Amino acid sequence: MSVKPISRYSVPDVLDLPEDMKELILGVQEKAGFIPNVFLALAHRPDELRAFFNYHDAIMLREGSNLTKAEKEMIIVATSSDNHCLYCVVAHGALLRIYAKEPLIADQIATNYHKADITERQKAMLDFALKISNEAHTVGEADFEILRSHGFDDEDIWDIGAITAFFGLSNRMANLTAMRPNDEFYAMGREPR
Amino acid sequence: MSVKPISRYSVPDVLDLPEDMKELILGVQEKAGFIPNVFLALAHRPDELRAFFNYHDAIMLREGSNLTKAEKEMIIVATSSDNHCLYCVVAHGALLRIYAKEPLIADQIATNYHKADITERQKAMLDFALKISNEAHTVGEADFEILRSHGFDDEDIWDIGAITAFFGLSNRMANLTAMRPNDEFYAMGREPR
Amino acid sequence: MSVKPISRYSVPDVLDLPEDMKELILGVQEKAGFIPNVFLALAHRPDELRAFFNYHDAIMLREGSNLTKAEKEMIIVATSSDNHCLYCVVAHGALLRIYAKEPLIADQIATNYHKADITERQKAMLDFALKISNEAHTVGEADFEILRSHGFDDEDIWDIGAITAFFGLSNRMANLTAMRPNDEFYAMGREPR
Amino acid sequence: MSVKPISRYSVPDVLDLPEDMKELILGVQEKAGFIPNVFLALAHRPDELRAFFNYHDAIMLREGSNLTKAEKEMIIVATSSDNHCLYCVVAHGALLRIYAKEPLIADQIATNYHKADITERQKAMLDFALKISNEAHTVGEADFEILRSHGFDDEDIWDIGAITAFFGLSNRMANLTAMRPNDEFYAMGREPR
Amino acid sequence: MSVKPISRYSVPDVLDLPEDMKELILGVQEKAGFIPNVFLALAHRPDELRAFFNYHDAIMLREGSNLTKAEKEMIIVATSSDNHCLYCVVAHGALLRIYAKEPLIADQIATNYHKADITERQKAMLDFALKISNEAHTVGEADFEILRSHGFDDEDIWDIGAITAFFGLSNRMANLTAMRPNDEFYAMGREPR
Amino acid sequence: MSVKPISRYSVPDVLDLPEDMKELILGVQEKAGFIPNVFLALAHRPDELRAFFNYHDAIMLREGSNLTKAEKEMIIVATSSDNHCLYCVVAHGALLRIYAKEPLIADQIATNYHKADITERQKAMLDFALKISNEAHTVGEADFEILRSHGFDDEDIWDIGAITAFFGLSNRMANLTAMRPNDEFYAMGREPR
Repeated sequence: MSVKPISRYSVPDVLDLPEDMKELILGVQEKAGFIPNVFLALAHRPDELRAFFNYHDAIMLREGSNLTKAEKEMIIVATSSDNHCLYCVVAHGALLRIYAKEPLIADQIATNYHKADITERQKAMLDFALKISNEAHTVGEADFEILRSHGFDDEDIWDIGAITAFFGLSNRMANLTAMRPNDEFYAMGREPR
Repeated sequence: MSVKPISRYSVPDVLDLPEDMKELILGVQEKAGFIPNVFLALAHRPDELRAFFNYHDAIMLREGSNLTKAEKEMIIVATSSDNHCLYCVVAHGALLRIYAKEPLIADQIATNYHKADITERQKAMLDFALKISNEAHTVGEADFEILRSHGFDDEDIWDIGAITAFFGLSNRMANLTAMRPNDEFYAMGREPR
Repeated sequence: MSVKPISRYSVPDVLDLPEDMKELILGVQEKAGFIPNVFLALAHRPDELRAFFNYHDAIMLREGSNLTKAEKEMIIVATSSDNHCLYCVVAHGALLRIYAKEPLIADQIATNYHKADITERQKAMLDFALKISNEAHTVGEADFEILRSHGFDDEDIWDIGAITAFFGLSNRMANLTAMRPNDEFYAMGREPR
Repeated sequence: MSVKPISRYSVPDVLDLPEDMKELILGVQEKAGFIPNVFLALAHRPDELRAFFNYHDAIMLREGSNLTKAEKEMIIVATSSDNHCLYCVVAHGALLRIYAKEPLIADQIATNYHKADITERQKAMLDFALKISNEAHTVGEADFEILRSHGFDDEDIWDIGAITAFFGLSNRMANLTAMRPNDEFYAMGREPR
Repeated sequence: MSVKPISRYSVPDVLDLPEDMKELILGVQEKAGFIPNVFLALAHRPDELRAFFNYHDAIMLREGSNLTKAEKEMIIVATSSDNHCLYCVVAHGALLRIYAKEPLIADQIATNYHKADITERQKAMLDFALKISNEAHTVGEADFEILRSHGFDDEDIWDIGAITAFFGLSNRMANLTAMRPNDEFYAMGREPR
Repeated sequence: MSVKPISRYSVPDVLDLPEDMKELILGVQEKAGFIPNVFLALAHRPDELRAFFNYHDAIMLREGSNLTKAEKEMIIVATSSDNHCLYCVVAHGALLRIYAKEPLIADQIATNYHKADITERQKAMLDFALKISNEAHTVGEADFEILRSHGFDDEDIWDIGAITAFFGLSNRMANLTAMRPNDEFYAMGREPR
């Protein structure tokens, strides 16, 4: 296992964190078997760590979303790859493989989603996500119409935009801090179904 | 005064919002004399509104930052202009004029910060902010060294990066929702000192 | 009021200029109450100053144009902002506010004309102006057709193109000379109607 | 010889033009043996034609410039090629070959001036011209210093910038009007010295 | 005639080359009257020289192609100009003039094929070639449909793509080695028909 | 296992190929346990298939190269990712993991080589490869000097450039044909050492 630094910034001991953050992290560790480095790197500033995960949950765990868990991860992988964010491509690539039960899909979407084994509807979703990521100021009614023609409603469109916007923040923090993905993520979900 | 819609999405009645969000908004209204539209547009989803402002405060109100309030607004105006976000340029342009007590500075930074009446140190700060905004993946030790040579420490650099990343999210949400700046912002802080 | 230099180059005394240029400038001063810095900065070379304003007038004062004075300024503000020309955005933003009698419109167009309070016809005009500014070599019959469908005739289209081309020159000269907008321009036309 | 249209717009009969423009054009015809199409295409609007050539002469014929005639044409060919302006590359390519007495130089500069048979000083001049053409807003003291280190003074730098700015206007007008270079230009100056 | 170096790398004596390469080059010299420098520059590594021309012939001399010799050269000139490859623009510009029997066409296509004297079908061919050159990953069924609507079949499309891809390699090798076009090429084929 | 098509174009039966190509492919199959799809997709035109692999071997198997097999694959993965070529990123990512005996390295280089676990010398190599891929026309002596300062000689630099150029061709052909990577490649070399 690698002993490369997790972040350009100092990483606190989990046990020294505020009680709620300590519980959050130990809970994740118990479930996943390891602590994803994003928790440790952002714990350099516990208030921002707390705000980050509250915002994350408000977007990603919203009840009533018509996007599947795999589709949300597709958005993250496609936009994070375009932003060249190693942490997010590797960590969310693993989640995408697991949720989609497709061992090939994350590498396909990270490299060229136009050639990925996904539906036309999902390609339209990723077209929109990349437009929000790269030129949100030109988004207009015509873009909404395209998504509606694929069966997305306006709340779904907010979801696509909000996930893109939130992980755009995450990509920039990961690149700022030189956040290192845990070695465990690279191979997760690669066994064929 | 304009009666143009504030957002592409429906805007709830403030009085129908969860208690904490209602209090937040009414408090802002009391102080500012009006409700900035970002509160109303994001209130379409109260959980995201709450997460947004908690994250905002964690970054913008952090104790011990060496950046002045005006410098933080410079970062927001420069990156939001580069992202063509009308809401943020107009609203934070107003705040920048007020904090800096400089009626010209916001238009200068929004159009071309290289020609603005700011210090070389502040230009280096904005160079870095735009690099985080547009190509964070190439940021490296050399960029940190430049900022350190201008007297910024690594926590200041995190601040610059985090403000850029957070308002990058904000810019994308504002463009997604076609968020309209309040008319009041345009003229605020324009009277000469 | 600022005592920052008007230009990177030396600025002559108006009284030392050739008679016709002296008259031009004193006439403007009488009307406007101040001398816009573009006259002083370009007066570094009186022959170019003369040529500049003759060309300006040939395009901007052409009789029979179907573009309103406000529409011409919209073109200038949109393309000058895209070219990051501080002088032109600030000075022509003032003119736009005054001609349009709209205190908000210049900031809207400078930041993101897609979200400005203008007509679809005006947005098509600005789409074309930015295409001439950034990739004139790809302009073809299809672009003319779009403008004609909005009621522009071919002379209007020449106007749009010529204004864009002329202020593209102006933007480059202003950035070359670090031309400084007069402080007076920033606040002009901002009082609500 | 081609009978393709000279311009997307109507071209007047030279004899119907205002006296001064008629004289200008007939004088050029006498000297060159043909009328360069730029005169005819812009004659669609005689006032703009007059303004164009007055401005052209103020910049290109300025007494005391340290740039050679060939160097001025290098700037025009390099920036016009970058702007994909067929008229200017072909017509000024011919002038460049003639003034420089170098049959290969225009094609070299139009394709890749980094590989052209010109001096390091001339490459620095073209670097600056392309910076003015593409991102004038970032030009600053450091760029002036580079040119000064190659022996250019600040008036030379104004010349480089003004030629670039003026032909940027010309490139956009030529592309707007689909201005066609005269067939004669293509082969001029190609015989070896 | 110029005595500038042909390549940044050493160039072997033709007589020292492997027998097959020596024959190839002497054969070309006999036919053309001179040795095109691409043979000499690549002869720095005879195995790569051999592979280059075998691949070249497999693509360019394929029997049954519906593209004319001139059309193949149009693709090379348009994409090589976009890649700023002096050798290929000059050498293949000469071939294009000769095959097309059109003295103006190469300069037109190198500068702005949208304004060249070619058919709409040929413009569609060049649109596709530039898409393969610059963003092949976005090419899809819709692009094939456009070409089919102009009468190209799928084998023609492979030809367009393969020529673009092969000369993309060639452009990069020429720029890596600073390959110099023979002076002879510049003027070839310029005499009117 | 997937039954998605290997190529947009028809794929011949290996047994129907010319003898030398049949032997080549069956030899690869025996060694690798499967036939990499690049052989089958390019076999649509056997002459191009033969030329492709002869060229490939001339570059990749050159005796005396100072680049390791892993370093050559780094160049392929970095430039193919930048070109969004799914086939090459997946297939050569597998080879890179195997040659480097590093299960994480391919994903790191494909996403952001600046953050990969490689040496400064290897980063300089990839900087140069991407410059050749994206703007070879600006490569000059200064770029050679940087590489020499990292211990590369001019033959190594040719290798870096030639590998980049050849796989640039390969990337374009793979995207043209929608070449599908074999499922086997995705997981190869991922087991920790």
